[in-house]
This record gives sequence, structure tokens and C-alpha cells, in this order.
Amino acid sequence: MTPFKFEVLHQSKKSRARVGRIHTPHGIIDTPNFVAVGTNGTLKALDNEMVRSIGLQLMFCNTYHLLLQPGPDVIAKGGGIHRFINRNMPIITDSGGFQVFSLAYGGVADELKSKGMKKHGGSVLKITEDGVHFRSYRDGKKILLTPETSVEAQKAIGADIIIPFDELPPYHIGEKELRQSLDRTHAWEKRSLEAHLKNPQNQAMYAVIHGGVDDALREKSCNFLRKLPFDGFAIGGSMGKSKGEMISMLTSLLPKLPDHAPNHLLGIADLESLESCIPLGIDTFDSSYPTKAARHGTLLTREGGMKIVRGRHSGEFQPIEAGCTCYTCQNYTRAYIHHLFKAKELISMTLASIHNLHFMVELMKNYRSNIINNLI
Amino acid sequence: MTPFKFEVLHQSKKSRARVGRIHTPHGIIDTPNFVAVGTNGTLKALDNEMVRSIGLQLMFCNTYHLLLQPGPDVIAKGGGIHRFINRNMPIITDSGGFQVFSLAYGGVADELKSKGMKKHGGSVLKITEDGVHFRSYRDGKKILLTPETSVEAQKAIGADIIIPFDELPPYHIGEKELRQSLDRTHAWEKRSLEAHLKNPQNQAMYAVIHGGVDDALREKSCNFLRKLPFDGFAIGGSMGKSKGEMISMLTSLLPKLPDHAPNHLLGIADLESLESCIPLGIDTFDSSYPTKAARHGTLLTREGGMKIVRGRHSGEFQPIEAGCTCYTCQNYTRAYIHHLFKAKELISMTLASIHNLHFMVELMKNYRSNIINNLI
Repeated sequence: MTPFKFEVLHQSKKSRARVGRIHTPHGIIDTPNFVAVGTNGTLKALDNEMVRSIGLQLMFCNTYHLLLQPGPDVIAKGGGIHRFINRNMPIITDSGGFQVFSLAYGGVADELKSKGMKKHGGSVLKITEDGVHFRSYRDGKKILLTPETSVEAQKAIGADIIIPFDELPPYHIGEKELRQSLDRTHAWEKRSLEAHLKNPQNQAMYAVIHGGVDDALREKSCNFLRKLPFDGFAIGGSMGKSKGEMISMLTSLLPKLPDHAPNHLLGIADLESLESCIPLGIDTFDSSYPTKAARHGTLLTREGGMKIVRGRHSGEFQPIEAGCTCYTCQNYTRAYIHHLFKAKELISMTLASIHNLHFMVELMKNYRSNIINNLI
Repeated sequence: MTPFKFEVLHQSKKSRARVGRIHTPHGIIDTPNFVAVGTNGTLKALDNEMVRSIGLQLMFCNTYHLLLQPGPDVIAKGGGIHRFINRNMPIITDSGGFQVFSLAYGGVADELKSKGMKKHGGSVLKITEDGVHFRSYRDGKKILLTPETSVEAQKAIGADIIIPFDELPPYHIGEKELRQSLDRTHAWEKRSLEAHLKNPQNQAMYAVIHGGVDDALREKSCNFLRKLPFDGFAIGGSMGKSKGEMISMLTSLLPKLPDHAPNHLLGIADLESLESCIPLGIDTFDSSYPTKAARHGTLLTREGGMKIVRGRHSGEFQPIEAGCTCYTCQNYTRAYIHHLFKAKELISMTLASIHNLHFMVELMKNYRSNIINNLI
């Protein structure tokens, strides 16, 4: 089995953007790249054979969801996540922390709509230095998620890249609480790494840099985590309430990350953010945006999002985008896909998702080519 | 373009079962065969490329649904149904009558639960000798469906086989009303055939034999319709409230149908009915049963229906059925499909539908082989 390795193939002369290659036991990830989110071990409305044929090199699965259904024991018995879901390509799992804390605090969007700050709401029962007690939304069972249990679950799942257990503090948090949260996260990440290194199992572990939109705290987090033998660095926690805040934070943070390790921006990969963040040197981005947009009838094209349910598309007997080589465009017209959405046929979501993911694969290829040519 | 033609290849020595071949402008249908229902121009949860690769030779689309969305004009502009939905294989459409009258009366099942007999309920406004006025459930527009407008719609849609406009009387109907309904249906079917023959457009038209479970009325219907130049004979109307009633009716009716023409049993293709009706000489059967069962997690196997959501399947790392060559069984295990259903992933329905349709294709192949060998 190929061990985890990262190589930078080209550093742009124009920006911090770079083209690289992450080697994993299940194949290569060309960077920069888009990482599709397959929460339950499948991308929504797609099966893993389709995903393979689209050429998505890295898939993100959520430990929180897999912990509750089918459970890491079932996946382990099935020979690990790759065999269980039939994907012979790289997979990354998160720690479960993000979902547990999202349940507790809600997302930034909720906070801004003042729905958030529902501390310990949802199904979270207690947060201690040890970890988080929460109640399964599936069967009401009490579950304790700690650095050790998260890593244990991720070992059973067996993804190529795993993530240490961290705390996701809310965006609206006092400076003192943010510092306390950061210290706790660092302690948890260290414990996660120790648990991981007892049995590396050919997996790589990425640290998660925290600190919200506070540049000094981000630097502190970076300094703490880069001293530990992590294989890569994910950027997590609150990215701020606007793209501007995020870009400002990343512009300051990225030069402080080790050059030789891959980095990953957690949960962000809308087209605008990709354009802003690739020149900052981000290697991989995950997001459910392209698949979620697809299911709502927004198709990605070079001219922007096409809302396929609009009446004007009902009589357009051409592919979504001229020249597109995706399965959907090779087989079906805008008019037919419009019809499938209007008729509420499930397969509309599959065909739209295939197109959007193919678009992302091509977009990232194009970014890599532009970086090689120092155009970015 | 190959014109419509039916040939009987083998008549069983053991029963009325026969193996035949229906030639259509878009290819051959081996008989007996199962016809999948693709109401809106797609099988639920499947795209037409998948359906082609499964080998389903005839697909049934519903004129009523296509009339309301996208409308026959859009399909005609798109080059006809085959081009519009990208299916280069045979397609049959019904007249729209079944759905309109189902709205008015409800199905037999509803009647038996005494939900039915809601005469002119639903969105049906008026039934006259001319046809049916109803209101579109989509946009509230008033629509008049007559023999002529149904055929006109079916000409615009352009399926290989079309069906005359008929009345679907409720199961609970007086003898006098049933006779009146039959006369009206015969008049409507004749008008439909006349409209069709003005512009055959390489389409075939099947008559629909009515008469409910009254053998004498079925014979009357058969005698009336077989004198007209229809290309085949569908059996419609009420099939009774039990399989026994249906089989008794079909046993009496089938020998009265012309031997040289294909016949079709409308809306019935559960496994039990196939087993009873193939020996009676039915050539094609349509039903949404295999796809509907799939979406509800019932997988067809030689040992019967497998309810994949049952706990026992959560740790079964083998295909749905050993030796099954379908895409789903080639790629995924019971445990994974169980997981996808439990996690409410849409793709579970697609994978289950692929398996069930492949099962039907293989089942019908097997029936044909058994007939050839005079085992049925």
C-alpha cells in the first residue's frame, strides 16, 4: 500500500497557488481539488460507481452520521469504508465534532438570524474536558464522543485521511471563551493524534487549525499544531460572517502553515470562494454546495448558475452546456431535465448532480492548468 | 423504418402460452414480456440509459401525465418521445382515459374500502358522449379529452404503440350502466381508430377490450373490436376484486381474441399474476409494481420479496442474490443497500429499482425459455 505523501509539483510565480499531488493508499488526489461530501457513504442522489466515473478523487464522509448509522462496527466487519461503499479511491472522514457542536449551537447563519446560541440545545447533553455526551437522533441512545472514541470510530471506518476531535465554538463568543475553547481543542487534537499514532493503520491525520476570525489566535493554533506530527492541516472553526472576513483570515493564516504539508479548507467550496482561496494556497476544499444546488435545480455552467425549472428552458433541446462531456449532457437536453424537475422525478436530482460534479472536476483541472502556467 | 409486425415463434404444447416477437419502428419486443411504467417519460428513480442497459424492451408512458407536463407540443418540437427522453427502443402510450376516470371514480381498491363511487369527483368536470372535460391538477386549466384529442396527443408524442380512448367504469356498477359504458367505449375506440388511420405515422394501435368481469360482455367487446383493423388487443377495465375473478375472466376471454395479434394485460404484472396469466396466452404485461416495491425496499429474488430494511440484512456482506448480474449486485452488498435505505439516501431507490427490473427481465427470459421447452 502506498503510504500517505504530498508533493508540490509547481508553485505559481503569481500567487501562493500551487499544484500538488497527495498520494494515499487508495490513489492520488491532484491539488488544488474539490472534495465532494458523501455524508452517509454516498453522495446524495448518486452511487459510488457514478462518482468514480465522474472522476472525483476525494470523498468526504461524516463520522457523526456513520457512527449512528450503520455504526463503525458494521463498516469494519464489511472490510472498511472503501469495501463497504465500493469506492476504491481516497476517502476522508471528519471527527464528528462539527455535527455534534452544530446541534448544540446551530451554524453561523442561524446565529446571525438569532436562532443560534441555543447552548447545549439539540441532542447534546453535556460537554466536559473529556468530550461530548449526546443523544442519538436515531434511537435515543446516549453516546460519548471523545478524542479517543472519535479516533476509534475513524479507525474502524478506515478512511485514508482522518481528522482529530475538535470543538466548534459559535461565531458569537467572548474572547475569553474562544481562548478556552482553543486550548480545549488543542488538548483534544493532541489526544486524538496520540490515539491515532498507537495504530496508524496507513491512515493520515490532518490537524484542524482553529481561532475563529482572530488572526492572533489562528497563529497560536498554527504554532501549537504544526509542532505535532500531523500529515496535513485543515482549517476549521468559524470562518466569519462574510467572505471578506474569511479571506482576510486565510490571507494571514496560510503563510504560517508548513509548505510541505497539504492543507484543506473545511466546508467551503462555492465558486466564488474557490476563486479567492486558490491563490492563497488552499489545496483541497469540501462542500455539499454543487450537489445541493443540483437537487434544487441549479446547474453550474461557465456562464453561472442555470435555474433549469425556469420556463425558458422548457423548449431548449440542447445540452445544459455546449461541449460538456458529462453523462447528463451526452444523453439529455435542457428541455427534458426541465421536464423531469417539473414532474418531480427523483432522477432529475441524479442527472443534475452528475452535471454539477463533472463541472467541478473540470473546473479544478482548469485551475491546476492555470497555476502551472502561472496565470493564477 | 420497420413497420409493426407480430410473429408467434412457438405455441406451447402444454397451455395457451406462446413465445413471440413484436417488431416496432424502434426495435423488437420478445413476448411474453414485462412492460415497465415510465409515467412521465422516465421510470421512477432511473434514467433511460440505465433502463436501456437493463434490457427492458418496452416502456409504458402515460398520455394523461405527458399532456399536462411537458405537453405534447413540447415533445413534438423535441422530435417525438423517443428523442425527447432519449430512448431508442419501443414505447407504448395509453389514451389518458384510465387516469381521468380513476380521478373520477377512484380505483377498485378504493371502492372496496368504500372510498370510491365519488362520481365526477376529483378534477373531472363533465363526461359526455363526446369525451371528458377535466381540470388540470397542475395549473387548473380546463382540458377536453376525446377520442380525437387523445389520438392527436398520442400522435404528437409519437410512441410505437398507442391506445384508443376508452371509458373506465367503476367495478361497482349496475349491469345496465356497464352495457351503456361498453357501448360508449366501443364508439370512442372506433372514433380513435379512425383518427389514427387518417395519419398512421408508423404507429400501431391496440384496441382495449372491456366488459368488466361479465364474460358475455367481454365476448361482446371482443366481437366488436376484432372486426376493426386494430394491430393488437389490450385487456382493460375492471379485472374484478380478486385474482380468481381476473383469471376466470381471462380464461374465458383469451381464446376469443385473434391468435395472430399481440395482446396486452393493462396494469397487472405482479409475480403471481404473471405465473397465472402467461399460460392463458397473455403476451405483454405492464405494471409499476417492481419499481414501486423497490422504492419501498422490497427486493425481488427467486426466494420471494426481500425487505432490505430488516435488521438481519445490516451485516450481510453479500449481493442481494448470489449470481445476479445486475449493476446493483455487481457493485453493492445487502448491508450497504440496507444502510442506504436506513439513512434515507435517494440512491437506495435507484439501486433497488435496477435490481428489481433486472429480475423482471431475467424472469421473462426464463418464462420464454420454459414455453419454448413446453414446460409451461
